[in-house]
This record gives sequence, C-alpha cells and structure tokens, in this order.
Amino acid sequence: MLELERQLNIYLSNTLEVIPENELREKIANSIIKRKPLKIKLGLDPSAPDVHLGHTVVLNKLKQFQENGHIIQLIIGDFTGKIGDPTGKSSARNQLTDEEVKRNAQTYFEQFGKVLDMEKVELHYNSKWLSKLDFEDIIHLSSKITVARLMERNDFTNRMAKGIPIHLHEFFYPLMQGYDSVVLESDIELGGTDQHFNLLMGRHLQEHFGKEKQVVLMLPLLEGLDGVEKMSKSKKNYIGIDEDPNQMFGKIMSIPDELIIKYFELLTNLSLEEKEKIRNGILNGSLHPRDAKAYLSKCIVSTYHGDEAARKAEKNFNTVFQKGQLPEDIPVVKWSGNREVSIVNLLVDLGMQKSKSDARRMIKNGGIRINTKKVTDINLIVTIDDEMVLQVGKRKFIKLKL
Amino acid sequence: MLELERQLNIYLSNTLEVIPENELREKIANSIIKRKPLKIKLGLDPSAPDVHLGHTVVLNKLKQFQENGHIIQLIIGDFTGKIGDPTGKSSARNQLTDEEVKRNAQTYFEQFGKVLDMEKVELHYNSKWLSKLDFEDIIHLSSKITVARLMERNDFTNRMAKGIPIHLHEFFYPLMQGYDSVVLESDIELGGTDQHFNLLMGRHLQEHFGKEKQVVLMLPLLEGLDGVEKMSKSKKNYIGIDEDPNQMFGKIMSIPDELIIKYFELLTNLSLEEKEKIRNGILNGSLHPRDAKAYLSKCIVSTYHGDEAARKAEKNFNTVFQKGQLPEDIPVVKWSGNREVSIVNLLVDLGMQKSKSDARRMIKNGGIRINTKKVTDINLIVTIDDEMVLQVGKRKFIKLKL
Repeated sequence: MLELERQLNIYLSNTLEVIPENELREKIANSIIKRKPLKIKLGLDPSAPDVHLGHTVVLNKLKQFQENGHIIQLIIGDFTGKIGDPTGKSSARNQLTDEEVKRNAQTYFEQFGKVLDMEKVELHYNSKWLSKLDFEDIIHLSSKITVARLMERNDFTNRMAKGIPIHLHEFFYPLMQGYDSVVLESDIELGGTDQHFNLLMGRHLQEHFGKEKQVVLMLPLLEGLDGVEKMSKSKKNYIGIDEDPNQMFGKIMSIPDELIIKYFELLTNLSLEEKEKIRNGILNGSLHPRDAKAYLSKCIVSTYHGDEAARKAEKNFNTVFQKGQLPEDIPVVKWSGNREVSIVNLLVDLGMQKSKSDARRMIKNGGIRINTKKVTDINLIVTIDDEMVLQVGKRKFIKLKL
Repeated sequence: MLELERQLNIYLSNTLEVIPENELREKIANSIIKRKPLKIKLGLDPSAPDVHLGHTVVLNKLKQFQENGHIIQLIIGDFTGKIGDPTGKSSARNQLTDEEVKRNAQTYFEQFGKVLDMEKVELHYNSKWLSKLDFEDIIHLSSKITVARLMERNDFTNRMAKGIPIHLHEFFYPLMQGYDSVVLESDIELGGTDQHFNLLMGRHLQEHFGKEKQVVLMLPLLEGLDGVEKMSKSKKNYIGIDEDPNQMFGKIMSIPDELIIKYFELLTNLSLEEKEKIRNGILNGSLHPRDAKAYLSKCIVSTYHGDEAARKAEKNFNTVFQKGQLPEDIPVVKWSGNREVSIVNLLVDLGMQKSKSDARRMIKNGGIRINTKKVTDINLIVTIDDEMVLQVGKRKFIKLKL
C-alpha cells in the first residue's frame, strides 16, 4: 500500500492533530481499494466572505485532497445566517437576507477558485435540511447530547464561570454544524484548532445517528502581520487574497522573520522537499531572511495573481523600498497655484497632510521628500517645477504637472 | 369591591403561594369590571390518566374558579407523550399512540366530570401548536431563556451536582409547558409545589413574547395513606376517585390522624365555616378522630359516588371492621367435595390460599376464621355445613352452599 502511505504523508504534513489517525488510515485505504472518493467537509460562515491568507491554510489542505481525487463539500451555514442572533446582542450575528447569503457564497466561490478546482467542488446550503426539522426532530437531535458535554466548550465554560449569560439557542450552533456532517455523511472535516469542539460534534452525532464517524483534521492557525494574533479581518493584521499584487508583496515582506518558515509551510504549494530545503537554509544561515521573504512573497503573489504579476510586484518593491527610487506609476496632479509656495501649505493643498501642524510634524520626523531628497526645514519655500515628485512616508507619492 | 374580596378569599384558601398576589387581585378586578372571564390553566400528563384524591386538590380549586364564571383550560401534553423519551432511559416516558392519548384524555374527562362541569371546560392538545414549530421558531423560543436559569430547576441542579447526565432535550419540557401559556394566553396557572419552576416558565415566556404574564397559584401536595409521601400511583399510597365506595371508605378510614384536617380542607366541598368548625373540634378534643374520619370518608365517597353509596359504605365498614360481623354480600360457592376435609386442603381447593404452606402460615398468624371463629389448629378437620362462612384476613369471604 505505497499509495496509502503517499497520501497519508501529504495529509499529515502541517496537520496539528488527527482524531483519530488510525481511522484516517482506514478511510484512505478503503477509498483506494473500493476506488471511492472520500467526502471532505469544510463549513463556511456566510457573513464574512472576505478570504485572507489565514483561510488558505485549510484551502491548501483541501486542495491536496482534491488533487488525489476526493470530493470537497463546502457548506454555507446560511441557516444560522438567516436567523441571526435572536437576542439582538451579538453584533457578529447580523441577520442576512437570501440575497446577501447568495452574494457572499458567490464571493467565496470566486476567491476559493484561486486555490481549488471549483467545478469539482460540492456546494451545500445547510438551510436545505435544517429548515425542515420540526420540534420532534429537534427533540431527537437534542437527546443525543448532554448539557455537561456542551458546557465543556471553552467559551461556554468561561462564560458560565464569569456569570455571563448563555442563552439556550447558543447550544444549537455546534449541534447544527455536527448535524450537517450527519446529513452529508462526511468522511473528514477540516478546521482550525479553535474549531476543536465543533468538529468533534460531527463525530459524536454521526455515531448517534448510526453513521460512520468522520475523522477530524485540525490545522494550525496562522498568525497575522503582527506575528502574534491569529490573522483576522477585525484585527487588521491580514492579507486578503484579493489584494493587489504590490500591496500583497509589500505586506508579506513586512512579516517578522520568525514566521517565514511557517508561512512557507502553510501558504505555498512548494513540494515537501523544497520546503525542507528552505527551512534548512534559514536555520543554518545560508539563506538570508530578506531573500527568503522575497521568494515567499513571489510564491504567494504568483498563486493569486500569476507569475508575471509576481515578477512586477517584486520589481516595484525593490524600486520603492530598497533602492530609494521612485515607483513606476505615480498619480499625477495638475498644479495651477503659485509657483512659489511654502512646503507646509503645499502638502495641505495637495491633500497629502490633513493640517499644517500634521505637515510640520511629518517634516520634523523626516517623512517628507521632494524628488527623493529629504526636507528638513519646516519653513522651506518650494519653487514648483514640472514633474516635481512629492513623497510622504514610504508609499504616498504625487507628481506635479504644470 | 366586595365581589373582588369575596373571590380572592376563596382562591387564597388552602393556596400555598400566589406569584404575585397583587397581579391576581388586578386580574380578578379587571375581569369583574370588564365582565370578562379569566382563563385558568391546568396541564395534564397524558400518560397517567388514573385520577386519585391527590389530583383533586387542584380540581377543587379549579371548581372554585369555574363556579365564579371563569374558563378552565385543560391542556393535554400529548406532544411530549407522542415523542416519549428519545433516549429510551426513562420508563416514565413511554411513547404513546394517537389512540392512547385520546383514550387517556377521555379517562381524564370522565373522571374530572365528577368535580367540574365539563361542558364549560376548554380541552386543548398541545401538539396542535408544538408540532408546527420549525427549527427557526425553536431557536427563537430558546433564545428567551438562559442555561443558568434552566439549571436552577431543582432536579437539574441535583443531577448536575451528582454527575448524572442531563440530555439537552430535557431542557425543552419546561419550555413547552411555558409556551402553552403563551399560545393560550392563560391568566392563571395552577399546580403543586413540585411544579414551581415549570409554572414560572409560563410567566417568563409570556413576558418575552409580549403577552400579559400569568399568575401562578401553588397548591399543597397531598400526602398519601402512609401520611409521609406525596400521594401517587407508583407509591401505592393512593385512593383513586374511581375506586368502589367500600374500598374508598376503608382507605380513608386508615389515614393517620394528623392528616384529617388537611384532608377535610383539601378534599371536601364543605364551606369555609364548616371546615373551621371541624378543625376546632379536632384540636380541642370535642370531635373524636374516629368520628371525624368517618364523616370525612362519607363526605368524599358522597362526592364521587353519591349520598346513598356513602351511607352504604359506612354501614359496610362498621359491620366488617368494627363489630366483627359479616358483610352483606359474600360470594357463594357450591361445595360438591367431601363433607370432611382438612382446613389446609379446603383453603387451597377454594382458591383462598395459593398453597398448603401459605394456608398453614395464615392459620398460624390467626388470619383464618370459620363462621367468625378463629382457627388455631393447622391440622383441623372441618365438617362442611350449609352456609358455612370462611374468612381470610379482613376482607376475603366465601360462603359454602351444599
């Protein structure tokens, strides 16, 4: 069973935990023998469709399964999305209309298409089965789980301990996610370590409904640009997969060195051998972190925007940030004011600074350049020339046209 | 508002707790002013239709409301009855068929007719509305209550403390009972003190669904024949309201003296003045407990079987248990065996004892009489006479006919 070991090796790479590994082995072996693809489930929150690199950790794992002929089941959790938060207290649970759900699902679909072959992916809306359950069905569903077990979920335990109310309907969110696995007869469910409890619920309910239990693959969470917190939109430490190539390249170049290896492992499609080579190079010092990051940035930009865009983004980055040269595409502003003007007034008139005091502060901090030359005098009177370039900080440029 | 005080006085008699009393006062006042009857709710378990005197405590209270023109809402909890216990662990929650539910409801109806005017009673089956709730409705219903609040219910608290599993669906039973009050817009709900939590749930949910809150009247639980435990079928300490007059009379005569006053208060329809007179008589010793019990028995038997039957039952009781005489209607058996027969064989042949050893034991215990004379010799040879009466224990008689 060379094929079994080959697949297992791929799926286990970068996977933090498999529950349980022997069942994963059995499922893969069975699928090879019976030539029957496995069903690999991923649940999606219909309210937050902006996909960033943090999400691609799991997408890359799905891609590995897809490349080996297995079926990807994407579940849009539209049922809860349409209900929202009945208490009205959670801002995270806004009520979504049918139209919003469809639009958000479409956004997922387009963005996931950059990693997965979407023609082979199954897309499911869980309202299809959940909205049909009646009270009797729900009594039966609820009878499969104890209150004590539900209270074990970290956030419930913590809230109970702190006396923060848990409303009864909140117990149903993990149950719904688990019930989706019952209906879809999923073989494997993927998720981040923060989904530990919810992923196991699928196993639990499948067993109680007489189905084969799914295997759970727990993947690492990706730290964001700050190198500390989990990458997320609300933390503003994220890199969206739809961001333009220059921005994406620049953001990746800004990550702390400690994250380089992890980003290579989780975010690129390099082979296991290539990844090992890079890891060794960084650890033994033969590969400079700056070069490693440049290669990382190129790999990732290339995945989402193509090789040509990646090449250009690298060139742009080098021009602006390294050689101190000007970038290629600077916005041009037609200047029709006095040719002689104070630097402070000029910055405010062009909208490059909000106020004169802001402008003065920026000059004092060395953040203002004219034709790449740093301005030091806050009282400087500038004589405007055609094609004169003003620069604020590292990324804001304006070229004046007379 | 003399009428208000008059009604209030009646409803408060024997009522342990009103939650809250000022709202009860308001509701009655409103109903008098607007000439609009109040809706008085009582929930019934469809699985145990045998009505005993313990149930009549609440029935007598309902009767008082009915006599003052209010509407009685009887709710058959058939929804849960039809589901049963999905875990299969609770023997108390057998799954009932539609037919069984209807038959049990019919039994209630017939038996309650001995106390209430059933033509004026509203009968509801809660499956009518509960079976129509879908998952979204249930999410909304569940969002009205916190887990902490549900855990406050005594049995949940105790089980959690002892580590006995509580399955999630169990949380729904109190919610359903409360939701019935929302749908039926009940003004007042009655129940025993053991229903404290469930009755308050109705108030809680009505408020969260924007309805006027029901008032809760908590009535005392009735101790059974043992004088200790709550009267219940499973404890075998009950007096069914369908039991025959002699049996009912005898059972009431057997209650401990300490219960006489409580039984008078809760189980008879005597006026408040008459009840007070009896109470005083017992407390100051002018009324002998035996006479009080005989009067109590007569009152109760009369309620369920009529005055004539009560009179006969009293006479029968006095004949058999007090004067040691024979009762009036003894079953007659034609004897065609030997005229000379051992007492042990005779008892077994007549089916009055299961075995010879049982018969011998009963003789030794002094439980066998021939023509009211105690048999002491286990080897006695009896000579059968026409009209000879054999007696086993206090209540089993056979008259032989040659």
